[in-house]
Amino acid sequence: MTETNTEHEKDLEKLFRIIHNVKFAMLTTVNEDGTLHSRPMVNKQADSFHGELWFFTQRSAHKVTEVKKGSEEVNVSYSSPELQSYVSISGHADLVDDITKKKDLWNDSLKTWFPKGVEDLDLALLRITIVEAEYWDSSASIMKKLYGLAKASILGDHSSLAGENKKLVLS
Amino acid sequence: MTETNTEHEKDLEKLFRIIHNVKFAMLTTVNEDGTLHSRPMVNKQADSFHGELWFFTQRSAHKVTEVKKGSEEVNVSYSSPELQSYVSISGHADLVDDITKKKDLWNDSLKTWFPKGVEDLDLALLRITIVEAEYWDSSASIMKKLYGLAKASILGDHSSLAGENKKLVLS
Repeated sequence: MTETNTEHEKDLEKLFRIIHNVKFAMLTTVNEDGTLHSRPMVNKQADSFHGELWFFTQRSAHKVTEVKKGSEEVNVSYSSPELQSYVSISGHADLVDDITKKKDLWNDSLKTWFPKGVEDLDLALLRITIVEAEYWDSSASIMKKLYGLAKASILGDHSSLAGENKKLVLS
Repeated sequence: MTETNTEHEKDLEKLFRIIHNVKFAMLTTVNEDGTLHSRPMVNKQADSFHGELWFFTQRSAHKVTEVKKGSEEVNVSYSSPELQSYVSISGHADLVDDITKKKDLWNDSLKTWFPKGVEDLDLALLRITIVEAEYWDSSASIMKKLYGLAKASILGDHSSLAGENKKLVLS
């Protein structure tokens, strides 16, 4: 079944609903020795979406040492037991030091995690450029992979959707 | 503060409580092209713990193609918004085809996910040999990394604990 634009929009909407519902995403990176590590990241995304995820982080944190060499392959996963939904985002991570962007994304509830505030020199932004997004849903009692989509379709380039199918396979 | 055995046991107990509380863990693997993908895995662990995690999977599933070449670096993360706790397990994944082990771990509730049952030839076991475990807890209002422990200490080799500290750092 080839998707229509409307179905595509519905799927995207569901994907972002899950992303916005989860308080802590898990960010997985690859260490220099090849081992994979994940850690919870406070999930405060912008209201509008342009194919990127943003996280505040501490420049001095270990995860930063893993991405400071340049763009790195990462995975961001979202688990919502409440919605019985799970999301995997594959993408590239970069450290961005842009005070305007920081101020755009900042709100004071983040002080719980970053008490020194938005002006703290140790505060950095981790930008994840999404390459692929997948989501699973178990509301129909079994876990199904409902949707896998590539960057072009996330960004609204519907011309690339021809032949793209919903995948209904067991996790 | 160097841990005592009692504290260590309490930490391990908490770690396993999180692991047993979560219905779907997220398994992250690295594709051949270097991209990182995660997917939800039904979490049915054995009651006794020997430094390994076990998951039923389908031999034909994509995740299997990523690990069938031999032991692979993976990450298993557990998110429990309910307990406000998060776990990262770094380890190696192997496909194990051991019908005795399958029957040990099997119970009929798994038929929801694997309707053909324990005798299905497409049913395989994914064994994760734990190399490192970390957990975070936000019950004290900010997310703290409470514990990072290496394999020897998970397996009860307390002699290796000398000098090992609880880390109390932001995510």
